[in-house]
Amino acid sequence: MAAGNDSAPVRLTFLGTSAGTPTRARNVTAQAIQFDDGRLWLLDCGEGTQHQFIRTGLRASRVDRVLITHLHGDHCYGLPGLLSLIAISGRTEPVELVGPPGVADLVRTVLRLSHNHLPYRLDLLELTTPGSAERRGTWTWSAWPLRHRVPCFGYVLHEDPRAGRFHLDRAQALGIPPGPLYRRLQDGHAVTLADGTAIAPDAVCEPPRPGRKLVLLGDTADSAAIAEAGADCDLLVHEATYDARRADKAIHWGHSTSAMAGRFAAALRAKTLILTHFSGRFEDGDAEGVTVPDLVREAAAECPGTRVLAAEDAWVHDIGAGSDGGDARTA
Amino acid sequence: MAAGNDSAPVRLTFLGTSAGTPTRARNVTAQAIQFDDGRLWLLDCGEGTQHQFIRTGLRASRVDRVLITHLHGDHCYGLPGLLSLIAISGRTEPVELVGPPGVADLVRTVLRLSHNHLPYRLDLLELTTPGSAERRGTWTWSAWPLRHRVPCFGYVLHEDPRAGRFHLDRAQALGIPPGPLYRRLQDGHAVTLADGTAIAPDAVCEPPRPGRKLVLLGDTADSAAIAEAGADCDLLVHEATYDARRADKAIHWGHSTSAMAGRFAAALRAKTLILTHFSGRFEDGDAEGVTVPDLVREAAAECPGTRVLAAEDAWVHDIGAGSDGGDARTA
Repeated sequence: MAAGNDSAPVRLTFLGTSAGTPTRARNVTAQAIQFDDGRLWLLDCGEGTQHQFIRTGLRASRVDRVLITHLHGDHCYGLPGLLSLIAISGRTEPVELVGPPGVADLVRTVLRLSHNHLPYRLDLLELTTPGSAERRGTWTWSAWPLRHRVPCFGYVLHEDPRAGRFHLDRAQALGIPPGPLYRRLQDGHAVTLADGTAIAPDAVCEPPRPGRKLVLLGDTADSAAIAEAGADCDLLVHEATYDARRADKAIHWGHSTSAMAGRFAAALRAKTLILTHFSGRFEDGDAEGVTVPDLVREAAAECPGTRVLAAEDAWVHDIGAGSDGGDARTA
Repeated sequence: MAAGNDSAPVRLTFLGTSAGTPTRARNVTAQAIQFDDGRLWLLDCGEGTQHQFIRTGLRASRVDRVLITHLHGDHCYGLPGLLSLIAISGRTEPVELVGPPGVADLVRTVLRLSHNHLPYRLDLLELTTPGSAERRGTWTWSAWPLRHRVPCFGYVLHEDPRAGRFHLDRAQALGIPPGPLYRRLQDGHAVTLADGTAIAPDAVCEPPRPGRKLVLLGDTADSAAIAEAGADCDLLVHEATYDARRADKAIHWGHSTSAMAGRFAAALRAKTLILTHFSGRFEDGDAEGVTVPDLVREAAAECPGTRVLAAEDAWVHDIGAGSDGGDARTA
């Protein structure tokens, strides 16, 4: 029997899954990452992201970090509106905005000219060094350059190793009183009971477990630079703007095919691959009848060990404390 | 019997009718004005306006002028996305963007930093002179300052006088052959028939009729400066952010109550008043149960000679060639 120290799932909500322009069914790119403690990080912020917050019931007041992959409009034109929604939500704690060079100028200029005085501090961090990384609580994010038509980054979100599974039945059998001694054992320290008995942590705890790892890419025709940091991830979110037959076109435009996404998932040994950023041509089938489920099949053929899914707007994917790669449902 | 020279209606589509932030039912401000020849002008462009174009089936390729009332985000944050949608629509003819000082810097900065190269010429006109006016085809627009917390304008769209009603039955009785002579008579010229008979235009045409006039306001706590240019309009679109009891609050924030909108409609002798820009508090009734229909009643009490309506998103209002103030329906 194990108990007590399983983290709540990290919850990824897809707010936009279309490439370039919104369609009737899909908005342009944004993904919300909700941590155990309720804090939200946002990855990209296409126009209409504030509308998707309202639609899905996400709380704008909890957004404390926005990570932008690149400055094409379908990934950032919702920023001024989202920052306004955060203001209206009553937030007064700082918000950090991370993105490629230019993101600070863009946001500052729009806020200034639109007379928009945010009631919270906006910390602007422009990415200039590959591998830029910061630890925030038990999670570290790092940013790595992707090949696209403009400067573009992918992000690795990596959790610290988590305490090993705690066996309550063993602790009880050893006569350890419930309370602070449980926490000390979980944290890897030996404890001594009132009767002088010394208990080593491995008597009741399993070894620490690796933290979860999420790899969230921007638009990309080549993601080699993030491969090492992203290896053995629980989840890879990868664009699939084109189907497998259109590799030349995809690479010309700085994008990926479904098959390229699958091959990269295999290279990372990703447990789960979620495809997103679909061209509107696949909505009802392109000229040859190719649809989003076909893209999933094309990607899956390239990564037999990986579960492959296609994102939809307002879709929630939980990455649990276990290592199964997560569960998905609609918000 | 009259025929042949009635203009198609000017069609006003409300794309956003909420104040400040979107709600589940209403987007932030934008209105599309579709002229007889299919050209579109847009008044304001809140975030999500491109989404509303897609929803309502309006053709972005026909937008040749965007008039911005002021630079608060809920009236302009959709501009970069809308300009992108126009580009994707295939338009290559110029687009004119008119607005308060700062609008050019805002748009140019966002387009530059987001690597957005429009395939059409964008002409930027910043309003510095009250009463700035330009004739475009048979319509003239003019811009007039309103009192708000930031520089803000209202627009008068005024059609040239239109040819008087043409009586086909009289023309036939006089033996005038159908064709170009009809047009010359309608344009106010006398014609001579093959048998030498001279026909004066008033034998078959009624006198020229005044052109239609639309008064489309931005956010305002005082619209006196536009009253003369807007007098005797067919349609006044006026914000009603607050209900009649909250005049102090409305004026403090640079806004209007429903009653202020009604009084201004009476001052203009407007045939129709459409209220818009509603606070989200009225969506399901505010603390005292006040709803949008209450705002309509409050406004109507101040302008007995004016028809008063409340705008909704995707709502189409036709301003016909007649002088009845127009018909409304949902797109």
